[in-house]
Order: sequence, then structure tokens, then C-alpha cells
Amino acid sequence: MNDQIRPEGMTVAQIAREAREASRELTALSLEQRNKALYAMAAALDEKRETLIAANARDMEAARAGQLDAPLLSRLELNHRKIDQLIDGLRSLAGLPDPLNRTLLARELTPGLNLYRISCPIGVLGVVFESRPDALVQIASLALKSGNAVLLKGGREAEKSNAALFSALDEAAQGAGIPAGWAGLLRTREDVNAMLSLEEDIDLLIPRGSNAFVRYIMEHTHIPVMGHADGLCHTYVDATADLEMAVRVTVDAKTQAYAVCNATETLLVDRRIAARFLPLAAQALTAKGVRLLGDETARSIIGCEPATEQDWETEYLAPVLSIKTVSGVEEAVAHINRYGSHHTDAIITRDEANRQYFISHVDSAGVYVNCSTRFADGYRYGFGAEVGISTSRLHARGPVGLEGLCTYKYVLLGSGQTVAGTLDGTYTYTHRDLKDGEA
Amino acid sequence: MNDQIRPEGMTVAQIAREAREASRELTALSLEQRNKALYAMAAALDEKRETLIAANARDMEAARAGQLDAPLLSRLELNHRKIDQLIDGLRSLAGLPDPLNRTLLARELTPGLNLYRISCPIGVLGVVFESRPDALVQIASLALKSGNAVLLKGGREAEKSNAALFSALDEAAQGAGIPAGWAGLLRTREDVNAMLSLEEDIDLLIPRGSNAFVRYIMEHTHIPVMGHADGLCHTYVDATADLEMAVRVTVDAKTQAYAVCNATETLLVDRRIAARFLPLAAQALTAKGVRLLGDETARSIIGCEPATEQDWETEYLAPVLSIKTVSGVEEAVAHINRYGSHHTDAIITRDEANRQYFISHVDSAGVYVNCSTRFADGYRYGFGAEVGISTSRLHARGPVGLEGLCTYKYVLLGSGQTVAGTLDGTYTYTHRDLKDGEA
Repeated sequence: MNDQIRPEGMTVAQIAREAREASRELTALSLEQRNKALYAMAAALDEKRETLIAANARDMEAARAGQLDAPLLSRLELNHRKIDQLIDGLRSLAGLPDPLNRTLLARELTPGLNLYRISCPIGVLGVVFESRPDALVQIASLALKSGNAVLLKGGREAEKSNAALFSALDEAAQGAGIPAGWAGLLRTREDVNAMLSLEEDIDLLIPRGSNAFVRYIMEHTHIPVMGHADGLCHTYVDATADLEMAVRVTVDAKTQAYAVCNATETLLVDRRIAARFLPLAAQALTAKGVRLLGDETARSIIGCEPATEQDWETEYLAPVLSIKTVSGVEEAVAHINRYGSHHTDAIITRDEANRQYFISHVDSAGVYVNCSTRFADGYRYGFGAEVGISTSRLHARGPVGLEGLCTYKYVLLGSGQTVAGTLDGTYTYTHRDLKDGEA
Repeated sequence: MNDQIRPEGMTVAQIAREAREASRELTALSLEQRNKALYAMAAALDEKRETLIAANARDMEAARAGQLDAPLLSRLELNHRKIDQLIDGLRSLAGLPDPLNRTLLARELTPGLNLYRISCPIGVLGVVFESRPDALVQIASLALKSGNAVLLKGGREAEKSNAALFSALDEAAQGAGIPAGWAGLLRTREDVNAMLSLEEDIDLLIPRGSNAFVRYIMEHTHIPVMGHADGLCHTYVDATADLEMAVRVTVDAKTQAYAVCNATETLLVDRRIAARFLPLAAQALTAKGVRLLGDETARSIIGCEPATEQDWETEYLAPVLSIKTVSGVEEAVAHINRYGSHHTDAIITRDEANRQYFISHVDSAGVYVNCSTRFADGYRYGFGAEVGISTSRLHARGPVGLEGLCTYKYVLLGSGQTVAGTLDGTYTYTHRDLKDGEA
């Protein structure tokens, strides 16, 4: 099978070069051609169920022998139910509107000279993802739908599953007319390192995984990186909060899942409401098994363990919550902008001015009012699927779906216009936005 | 005056930290507050004309002594006419619509839980620009209009002019209520180097200047960089081109200005039309004083000097044009994607299929049909002004105006919704786009 994945002696640079060449063709494929390939990929997963599950069984065996813990084992497993979901996902992706060839701006510069901003693929993506075989299918299919070529590197634990999935998808896609090289599978950490210097042939890196890993990627490449290292989210309970709502939302934001980037790690509470809110919150959270760490005021009310400066910088990814009391929305926002990771932060309030202050001053991809930070997710936002969540400020911010995998080009259609002609009075700029159907 | 620009002993890191702090306030200023500052800046330039011109005279004197050549001297000069233009520019910028707080998406996730994608400033910009004092005013004002703090570093030759302009603008802006630190002036190459490692406090670098300088910046920082190193643009004359139009557009693309990134540097010609087109083009270009270098076929027709492989990679920025004959649109596109700089490339054609092939396959920020590459410019596109032209694929591509200096945040407004509630059936996702006025 290895020969199918990577012809003998092919370097990562060669795989990336092939991907660049394929990307030049991908960009011109019609929506119908890309969708046809997605349906073919769905059919291939259905046909090759037994092969895929057998390959996954070998990964699972090794993982059990390596004492991988239960949540990781559950993510690693590929079974009929998960394959059904992947097939559904591919088909529903095929049903989504085309992210390419959208007219984002249409403007007459001067009569007969029209400017269009048209969405197009970024080019070649390099995606490194966790040991979850369904991630490979989701990422490869999002790349294809958006006309991008993609280099894929999954977690080591899923190596055999990924090889089998990749082989099935690549064969199906090529059979449906997608150019060879549109996707490449990398297999080692050295492959990832090799990718970091391929600025000519890779346009965007999307690393998913531990903070340390994402940081490592960011610090060792000049290729643009999209993603997030930390997910240090806050929920701030304002003095005017509805207490019942504040408890309900805080419990969801902290406990609905723990090892996720959009879970709340620090609870900020206006001191004026702390004595009433914290006992209710502590009771509900403790009932869920959450360990609480608080500042002095919080401790004087609920008698929890002390939180230190380091706690404000810690993404626990576990049933642990740090609690800080503040003098109001300004101190809350200052804390969030200083210690947060610009991911997702929420305020619980009934005060219009505080809500507005929070929205305009918190410098995060998601700024929430009266709801759980756990909503920060491409599926929940209605993006169909997500390739990751970005905490950088450029290009795409927050959950990134198909749209974030696209860029645009300016298409200027003329009839012989020259810049000299705009200076000598032959043409005059009108800069008039064109209406639908006008061009 | 130096003390006004930079309090004694203030490091670039401290200036950047102040800018970050100011940016937290800038993001929340209303359009009226930002425009008020722009008008105040315009008034300050008007009032301080004599001081500004006197400071510029000292730069001009040093430049003349240093034997700076005429075009550079002309760019460096600040006179009443240029100050008038700067004042007009500031006032017309104040008249432009707000790039901030625009609702880019409005969607009901579930009844009572609405998601908005709202445009907001990027944060802190670091801009390095050429020795043209008007550039400082344009960049500082674009930053302010888009709510960004900015670190400014102009060319050494304009040092005194920049100090005087900066002082006038900063005083006027602060007088109009803009927070101190919103703009900082850097003065040395070491200052620029210091900026490159300030990832915490600078969100985007925009280097303008020589290829080598831009490349240096790109290779020595992990801060995102927007801009372009090369502007190696092509004009391709297809076999079906209108010959008169092809000559006219080629002459404009090459000769309308030379030392500009959007001038055509290589002319590609379909061999089937070369014998008819090249003599006409050569006559017109030679009449303008352009030196021609050609491949063998071109030389056999017009007897020019030979072009070598290196010419295809050269941005002349001078009255020199390399000419290559090709077998058709496919070879032309392959040449452009291989040797070009992804800036702006044009086709002259009357063939619908070739035009479509060119548009979808050329991987450049601007893809033009039947017009001059010289149109690649923010003013000509109707963006009001530009901070630069980007050849990277992410975020903003092509001429970058106010919109490219903005990012967005997701604002989610709820009434106590939890993710647990979406799983237990309390709420169901609707993912319904909201109509204007619905929320």
C-alpha cells in the first residue's frame, strides 16, 4: 500500500510540487466536477468499509497495547457508524453552495472597463491533525470542495487507518477526474519539518493539536499559519446578570466538554454579585466534579483552593476552573485581553452599556453575550464543517469553513483601456458599483 | 522636537506596547470621533505649512548634497501643492463610509441566539515606507480611519519632513480625542529590526520599498507581512488579438511609468501572430525609447537583442522589455505562473475560451483582459487610497485599502443558551440568515 501513497523515493518537496501543479488544474474545475469527486469518495468509503475497519483495527490494537486512554481510543476508532457519518458528511458537503467563483465585488471603473473580485482557491494547504481518522476525510474533502490541493499529516496512532482512507479517497477522486497529486499523505514528524520550508509550494499551514505543537509550527516557518495554540476562554458574570442564567451558562461553558478549546477556563465575577452568585455556581460546578480555584474574595465566599497568577494563564482542558473577582466590566475586559488567547469570551449581563463595552473592547475571535463559549464551532455556526478555529487576526478568524479556504483575485475586463487614456481625458473614472445582472 | 516624538529612552517595544494599549481604545471610537480627528489633522497641515516646508527643505538640501537623482528628489519634495493634496486626501477619507462595525453576516443559530460577523480593526500595524513624506500622512490616516494603531518608519532621506509631519498629525489627533500612542514614529533601521520580533504587540507588517528590503522583512519575522517583493507583470498577446489594441495596451503597460510595480516587464506573444504584431509593437515601443530583448523567434522578426533565462525573472523597473513567443494561451499561462510574481497579468484576446482559460488559470492578484496592467492601483480601483499592493494569497490580495486593514469578530447574542440544550432537544439549530432589520 505504501507505494500507492508515495512512489518510492518521493520527497515531501516533490509531493508539494505535484500538489502545486495539481492546484493549477483544480482551480479551474467546475462545481459539478468537484462534487462528482465527493460523491465518488463517499461511494468508495461505503465499498471499502471492511478494508478501512481492518486497517483501523491494527491501529486500535497498537493503541491498546500502548495504553492509550479511553477518550483517545474512542476518537481513534473507525466503525460502521462513523463511516456512515463520513459518507453523510461527504454528501452534504457536495450539496453546499460553491465557495469558488463568487462575485464579491463588481464595479465599473470607467464605461467598458469592469472590475470583479472573484473568490478562488488559496492553492496548496498543509494540514497536520490529531489521531482521529475522520479528520483526514473531513479535511481532504473541504480542500477539494474549495479547489485546494492538500498535504495531509495525521497523528501517528492513526497511521494505518489514514493510509487506508487516503488510498480509498485518492483513488476515487482521481477516478472522477481530479488531477493526480491533488492530495499527498505525509507520514513522519520529519515530513512535517520538511514541509515548513516549502514556501514556494505551500500557501497555508493549518496545524491542529497541542499548544506546544502549534507554537512550534508557528515559530519554525515563514508560511502563513492558520489555527490556534491556546483556547483560554472566559465567562464574565456582570453585576446585572440573571443568576439562574449565569449558573446554567457557566456550567455548560465549563463542563459540557473538557478537552476542548472553547471550554471556559476562567470565571470572572463582578464583586457586587459574588456573594450571591458564587455559592450557587460552586454548588452546581462541584456537583459536576469541577475543582475550583479562586482569588481571595472568591475564597472568602466559597472557601475553595487558592488561584495563583499562573492559573490565569492556564488552559486546564480538565474539570478545573479558576475564579477571579473584578470591580466591573472594565477590569474583566482588561483581564481577558491580557491573559486570554483571543479565542472566545462571554459576558452574562442585563446591562446594555456593559454589553456594548464588552463587545467592542474584547479582542477575541468570538465575543458572546448571554450564552456558552462552547458554541464556538463551525458546525454550530452553520458553516457545514470546519477545518479549524483561528485566533490570528488576519484572513479568517474564529471557526474556519470553506470560505476561509478561499482567497480572491481581481478580474478586470476591458476593451483596450490604458492608464494614459484616463489622464488625457479619453476616459473618466466612474467607480460605479454594478447591479446584479448588469454585467 | 525629538522629545515630542519619542520620550527619552523609550524603546521600540515600549512604543509598540503603547500602541497596543491605544488600539484597545481606538477600536471602540465612533466614526464621528475618528473623522473629527481626520479633519483636525487636515487643519493642522494647513496651519503648519511653513514649519513643514522648512523641515522638508532641510531634507531636500541634504538630498541634493547627496546627489539623489531627479525622480527621487521630486518624490521627496513637500510643497504647497502637495500639502493641498494631502489636506484634500484627509477630508475625502473622512467622507468615506465606515469600514468598521459592518455586519458581514447575520444568522439565527436557534431562535433567540443570533450570530453576527462584524468588521473591526486588525490592531497594531507596522508600516515601513519609501522617502515620500506624503506617504506618512496617507498611511497614518488610513490606519486611524480603520481604527488601527500604527508604527511608522519612513525613508531616511525624509527624516526631518516625517518628524514634522508626525508631530503635527499626532498633536492634532490627540487634541481631537484620539488616545496617546495611537501612532509611533521609528527612525532607524535598528528600530525596524526591533519591530520584527514584537509579535505580541504588532499584528501586521506592511513593508514598502525595494524587493531586497521586502524579502528581508519577510524572512526575518513571524509577524504576518502584507505587501509585495516583486512586481513582475506580463501582457500576453493572443493569436486572436485586435492588433491596434494590443499595441496601444502594451505601450501603456510598459511605458506609462517605469519604476512601478504594475508595469509590464515581459511581453508574451502567440507565434501565430508574432510576424504581424511584433513589428508594430517594436516600432511603437522603440519610439518611446524602450530597449527590447527577445527570444529567437522574436529576434528573427524584429532583430532585437537576445533575452536570456534571467530576463524572464527580471523586474526591470526601467525602459526595457523582454519578449517571448509562445505556442498559445497554455504556454503563456505556464510562463506567467512560473516566472511571474502573482501581481497583475493581462491577456489581449478576442477569443472567449482563451480569455476564460487565462482568467481561471493565472494565479495572480489581478488577471486582466484587454487592458493595461497599470490599472492595478487602489485609487484606480475606487478604494479611495491604498496602503500597498499584496501578492500574498491570504487576507487581502491586490491593492489594499481600508477594507484590507480590517478583520472581523463573531458576536453571538443569546438569552442563556447552552450547547447541552442543543443536544437534549431544548433548542434546534435553524441556521437561518437574518434579513436586514430583522435583528
